[in-house]
Amino acid sequence: MTELHKIAIVGVGKIARDQHLPAISAGKRFDLVATASRNAQVGGLPGYTSLDALLEAHPEVTCVSLCTPPQVRYDDARRALMAGRHVMLEKPPGATLSEVHDLQALAAEKGVALYATWHSRQGASVQAAKAWLAQGRSIRRVTINWKEDVRKWHPGQDWIWEPGGLGVFDPGINALSVLTEIYPRRLHLASAELSFPENRATPIAADLVFNDPEGAEVSAAFDWRQQGNEIWEIRIETDQGLCLLANGGATLLIDGEQIANGTDEEYPALYDQFADLVEASAINVDLSPMTHVSDAFTLGRRLQVEQFYF
Amino acid sequence: MTELHKIAIVGVGKIARDQHLPAISAGKRFDLVATASRNAQVGGLPGYTSLDALLEAHPEVTCVSLCTPPQVRYDDARRALMAGRHVMLEKPPGATLSEVHDLQALAAEKGVALYATWHSRQGASVQAAKAWLAQGRSIRRVTINWKEDVRKWHPGQDWIWEPGGLGVFDPGINALSVLTEIYPRRLHLASAELSFPENRATPIAADLVFNDPEGAEVSAAFDWRQQGNEIWEIRIETDQGLCLLANGGATLLIDGEQIANGTDEEYPALYDQFADLVEASAINVDLSPMTHVSDAFTLGRRLQVEQFYF
Repeated sequence: MTELHKIAIVGVGKIARDQHLPAISAGKRFDLVATASRNAQVGGLPGYTSLDALLEAHPEVTCVSLCTPPQVRYDDARRALMAGRHVMLEKPPGATLSEVHDLQALAAEKGVALYATWHSRQGASVQAAKAWLAQGRSIRRVTINWKEDVRKWHPGQDWIWEPGGLGVFDPGINALSVLTEIYPRRLHLASAELSFPENRATPIAADLVFNDPEGAEVSAAFDWRQQGNEIWEIRIETDQGLCLLANGGATLLIDGEQIANGTDEEYPALYDQFADLVEASAINVDLSPMTHVSDAFTLGRRLQVEQFYF
Repeated sequence: MTELHKIAIVGVGKIARDQHLPAISAGKRFDLVATASRNAQVGGLPGYTSLDALLEAHPEVTCVSLCTPPQVRYDDARRALMAGRHVMLEKPPGATLSEVHDLQALAAEKGVALYATWHSRQGASVQAAKAWLAQGRSIRRVTINWKEDVRKWHPGQDWIWEPGGLGVFDPGINALSVLTEIYPRRLHLASAELSFPENRATPIAADLVFNDPEGAEVSAAFDWRQQGNEIWEIRIETDQGLCLLANGGATLLIDGEQIANGTDEEYPALYDQFADLVEASAINVDLSPMTHVSDAFTLGRRLQVEQFYF
């Protein structure tokens, strides 16, 4: 029997409470020992205001899971890796591609695990969609719709509107993480339009067109101005039927017939994968979703739209 | 004695005429056989309006050098690689990072050479600066000033103001290509301010601050509004003297004393390197300068400044 890995959480905010704490509790591979967060604590556990203090007080903590916003994640990730701890990163893994390259090199040097997670890839029907597409079908058109109400899903989260917070790409990168997982070949951005509210540093909507070297028409529409229910779907038209991955990856319909559906077990799956990586001191960092986002910021035409206030 | 490699140029514009044609003529490794360009030709040589037509008419052409703007480079690069030709790319190697990853994979699959050039790395004093920094000096501060008059250096080039044209990062990426060549460790962007003219899609100025994990203060100022002479310099303060790489990498001063200087042989050096890669069917693609630029577009705060007209 394997001993539980002693883990610490950095950044006790919405995503930590909604997903990480329940997933660690429900799983059988980690024991949450302490947290570090500027203001918040988790009842009953030692809480520190800095990761340095935590690491010094808890040499038994071998794993650190970073749930802080991407703009401040690098320094703590570096600190944890330098101290020889295994590290798991929320998505996106950082504010820049270069800093993640740096962390990758450092993890390799220190011989510890580094896991850049993409929770949407663990959606219940993602692997079924990938398998269906892998059966030699010819893809004609891909249409991604990823639309949600920012007031419902990111209430009062000002960091997403600050540089590095990615704006609507914060959910949009989930769609791209699924697309890059299931698509049978590489794509690259051909053009993009990004809509920035006049008073914000990140976009509230984005329209992307990709180039598929084999000629399929591939486009994505991300929008945070959605009213009512969210739409998180990837529609793939092929010569042998229509694949619709809906509900963010939970549900798969082929030609309108539901062939897979599951409850949300994304974060428990991430922690299982992290435990495997920790036991092998291995690195799992795939930057392709984040590269598409950086490409969109680099290549995208900027439109100015009306001011946004929560 | 090695036979000359038969080469074609795609995109007969300013950079091709100013640099590529003279470098190929002066060198001893390539024989320019034909060109493809929408409107221009090179006197005495067969000229085509598409690369497809050129490749079909000239099976003896084994090498293709792409001098077109980055926004349209991918399709021709892919065409040339698919046809089994060796490919050399002007800087930046593409409009997106993802498309260059794609070309890299394709070149590897086809077993041909792919060279993403960075001409400023061939500056006469760049290697001397690198060697000086490699001698264990402790770096305290790096200040990059890369300022030129866009009307002088890019007269009427509208593509640099279009999405994917990079704006002031078109020269700025030269500075970053030198910095990433000479600096003894990895850096990543910490913050940036990008100044966009109200009527343009790319920035006319950029101020960047980098994070050096060992604590040096590293900043860069790119500006296209420079009047009078251009300033292309990298100043590196260490515990053992001041290194000033000036004139875009041609001149090296240590504590004010000139210790290296050379005439511009950047493009002849690129073609020599390309010939070496062709003979080995090897790939040389370093995306670190372009990654810093993408990081700046992703993380940078956007300011709006006055309209620009040529």
